[in-house]
Amino acid sequence: MEIVGFCVFLQSQNKVYIKYNRIIVMAKELKDLTKRSENYSQWYNDLVVKADLAEQSPVRGCMVIKPYGYAIWEKMQRILDDMFKATGHVNAYFPLLIPKSYLSREAEHVEGFAKECAVVTHYRLKNAEDGSGVIVDPAAKLEEELIIRPTSETIIWSTYKNWINSYRDLPILCNQWANVMRWEMRTRLFLRTAEFLWQEGHTAHATREEAETEAQKMLHVYGDFAEKYMAVPVIKGVKSANERFAGALDTYTIEGLMQDGKALQCGTSHFLGQNFAKAFNVQFVDKNNKLDYVWATSWGVSTRLMGALIMTHSDDNGLVLPPHLAPIQVVIVPIYKNDEQLKQIDAKVEGIVAKLRELGISVKYDNADNKRPGFKFADYELKGVPVRLVMGGRDLENNTMEIMRRDTLEKETRTCEGIEEYVKNLLEDIQNNIYQKALNYRNAHIYKVDTYDEFKEQIEKGGFILAHWDGTPETEDRIKEETKATIRCLPFEADEESLTPGVDMVTGKPSARRVLFARAY
Amino acid sequence: MEIVGFCVFLQSQNKVYIKYNRIIVMAKELKDLTKRSENYSQWYNDLVVKADLAEQSPVRGCMVIKPYGYAIWEKMQRILDDMFKATGHVNAYFPLLIPKSYLSREAEHVEGFAKECAVVTHYRLKNAEDGSGVIVDPAAKLEEELIIRPTSETIIWSTYKNWINSYRDLPILCNQWANVMRWEMRTRLFLRTAEFLWQEGHTAHATREEAETEAQKMLHVYGDFAEKYMAVPVIKGVKSANERFAGALDTYTIEGLMQDGKALQCGTSHFLGQNFAKAFNVQFVDKNNKLDYVWATSWGVSTRLMGALIMTHSDDNGLVLPPHLAPIQVVIVPIYKNDEQLKQIDAKVEGIVAKLRELGISVKYDNADNKRPGFKFADYELKGVPVRLVMGGRDLENNTMEIMRRDTLEKETRTCEGIEEYVKNLLEDIQNNIYQKALNYRNAHIYKVDTYDEFKEQIEKGGFILAHWDGTPETEDRIKEETKATIRCLPFEADEESLTPGVDMVTGKPSARRVLFARAY
Repeated sequence: MEIVGFCVFLQSQNKVYIKYNRIIVMAKELKDLTKRSENYSQWYNDLVVKADLAEQSPVRGCMVIKPYGYAIWEKMQRILDDMFKATGHVNAYFPLLIPKSYLSREAEHVEGFAKECAVVTHYRLKNAEDGSGVIVDPAAKLEEELIIRPTSETIIWSTYKNWINSYRDLPILCNQWANVMRWEMRTRLFLRTAEFLWQEGHTAHATREEAETEAQKMLHVYGDFAEKYMAVPVIKGVKSANERFAGALDTYTIEGLMQDGKALQCGTSHFLGQNFAKAFNVQFVDKNNKLDYVWATSWGVSTRLMGALIMTHSDDNGLVLPPHLAPIQVVIVPIYKNDEQLKQIDAKVEGIVAKLRELGISVKYDNADNKRPGFKFADYELKGVPVRLVMGGRDLENNTMEIMRRDTLEKETRTCEGIEEYVKNLLEDIQNNIYQKALNYRNAHIYKVDTYDEFKEQIEKGGFILAHWDGTPETEDRIKEETKATIRCLPFEADEESLTPGVDMVTGKPSARRVLFARAY
Repeated sequence: MEIVGFCVFLQSQNKVYIKYNRIIVMAKELKDLTKRSENYSQWYNDLVVKADLAEQSPVRGCMVIKPYGYAIWEKMQRILDDMFKATGHVNAYFPLLIPKSYLSREAEHVEGFAKECAVVTHYRLKNAEDGSGVIVDPAAKLEEELIIRPTSETIIWSTYKNWINSYRDLPILCNQWANVMRWEMRTRLFLRTAEFLWQEGHTAHATREEAETEAQKMLHVYGDFAEKYMAVPVIKGVKSANERFAGALDTYTIEGLMQDGKALQCGTSHFLGQNFAKAFNVQFVDKNNKLDYVWATSWGVSTRLMGALIMTHSDDNGLVLPPHLAPIQVVIVPIYKNDEQLKQIDAKVEGIVAKLRELGISVKYDNADNKRPGFKFADYELKGVPVRLVMGGRDLENNTMEIMRRDTLEKETRTCEGIEEYVKNLLEDIQNNIYQKALNYRNAHIYKVDTYDEFKEQIEKGGFILAHWDGTPETEDRIKEETKATIRCLPFEADEESLTPGVDMVTGKPSARRVLFARAY
């Protein structure tokens, strides 16, 4: 083989350049994110890509989740899975493909999903006779088309039919971790993608009450997860009829508020009544020997949570990750003049790394010599590592380290004595601080509004708006059309004034209570 | 609502009956598996379904993995994932759908998978104009068809192209846990299904040697997992050209021997050379500033491992699970005359359960009163729970328990004093015993054969056959056609005689060494 060219890589400040045939071009800008104040949407996209979380794939609307992004998702999965198991749920796996006729059994359900279905029609490729390549074999057409699951109620309830005869078979408390596909036309990394990863719980119960309790219980599990692990404060509530899951009698939701004043639905839980049991004829004999249809719930969170996590905490320097979900909680960077000094720092740091690990802290010691400290600092800031420790020559002499916390960028120098416990406490402090900061922001951006003019004015500025609504889908539709705002939920928790009847801000008709509006992702 | 009928459930021995309108029919046979000696294949299917591992779904060739089966798979996943991470790998996620043109880029690859591709051609459903239901919207035809991944080399290497510029970007050591689809015409639960779950590692390297080392290293990881956790002895080796992965230069394999004398390929690892790098033009600048194509490996194990696990150890009473993978390692069943006695047993057992859990043992105390002890015994035997403890009235008085080990069905009665440590050791003993038993069986069924007549005779009886082969695909094809036997591998480990040149048993041509034949799943 003959070499036909080569290039070299050069680094200066935070940029890497490629030199190829004497031409120098920039290969990678390591930081310099778009600022949030300039273009929030661009800032988000930049950040997702530059922090190595995800990228667009060659398949329209489908993303590649890169190792660093996937490591965060894995932590979320592990914690959620433990929470599901602690509440009595087990995992199972149901088919990816759903016969078209199954999807159609529940009328509202198919109405809700028909427009975004990826359809499998053939099961074989073959070589084109004209030698032009591989084509779909027309002889291998399926008798009935199969849909890539947009959600699995139909395939699961067709299965539950065989599992349920008597009340003794109930409840069934299954969860599935899976990929699903909804053919979205306008996609954004993590927030709205054609394929996404999620978990979907599907439970079957003997009574209406038990199913309703389950749906609410799982919403609270989601709320706890969002607040305790993601440090994302959420408002829990019930959706209006317009915003319900297709086929549900009630949809419960947790709603977060992003830094641009838009709401993000973080997770939903559905009380499905007997709709799917009726669609698939799933009956059971109850304790009194009476035959009845089974009661159902379903509930899910997805890789969309990554979007909520990123947008709630991050800043113009990059990601800010809550310590409970950060793949690397602590990074240690040495600054050294020569190999001898590095050896001394290595020896010193080794013990600290070991003690940090003993405390259950995930730590990375980055003494690679192919990148300069400044580059490393910028990169770990971009990646949201909660705590950075630095040891230089002076530190070595003084038995100290410089500690920087990512959330406030504050630095201090401390003795190495007991630094491990200090870092452990600092991580908890950061977790609490970013939650409190997000909570303060959220609470400062909830507005009570009584006229439609005020509403229109406020909605342009962003935030949650508590306003009166007459309870009709027509008024809701009108508000959405005119202001792009939707009812996020009827919050479970509300002050007395919000629960006092009033009049609809648009129609002047009676309103039972204030409901929560916002523009949303 | 009016009650139009009801039924009652009756249990007698190991059968449950339904009484409906005075007619009594059997609802569920709780045991009474087909015997292995009668019909091994039927025994396997019965067992998978009756032990609640998996069942056929309404979608042709796709299975539902039931919670008990999935719990075993989850244990496998967790252990394998830890092993991958311990060898430096990280997880990521790549799209489910692959553009048809991508699949075609590597000629052998598409040739290998074209015949079993599920093809997505449309992205929307709509209501039929004649009101007959929901149809595929002909206006929503994709410009280019998308294939549900049968494996992800093509989509991943098209992505790696953007990740790799220099040797500094290498190696990339990614793994993905995912579902894949291969449209098989004859399917069997776990062993061969259209959709299955697996992990696929895809690594990129700067040198041929490094890639070859990686492929072999991961095969050894698989081998260790099979032997230490699944208790399935495997023969490691390299595949003949005919049996290679489509697009690989070398395929390494671990091969198990099932109780019916047929081989089961449990996992494979591929050295892909530069084939995919060339197909997707993935080049890098090496340390000497030379441009070269990247070297690749891929490796995978799937839910097929469940089939190997089941067939290696189980018997006519049901599953026999290795303690390292059993979702329930110990079950405790009380036998009591009245509620008072049950309370006393509950109190006694509570402490034992707590101590077992402290030792990291997964234990279930089944004091449910809706099933009789005999039913419970049969059910936990069927489900392969490694150790059963029973406490009855006499035991309560004597401070003893009856211990049964599932692998040998041996029972003994022991004092409760120190029973937890005893059980912990017993679990290790069972793990070793079933491995040793499987190893003895496997070793007793490896035959050296020197003539084709002997070969044909032996292959009917089953087992691994070590025979000489002239190294040509033609001879291999002929043997396969005439005897249904294939070359499972050229084992890495072989005695001196097997590595001594000889003559092909069919053609009489020279043979470098004995290779391993068997009929296979």
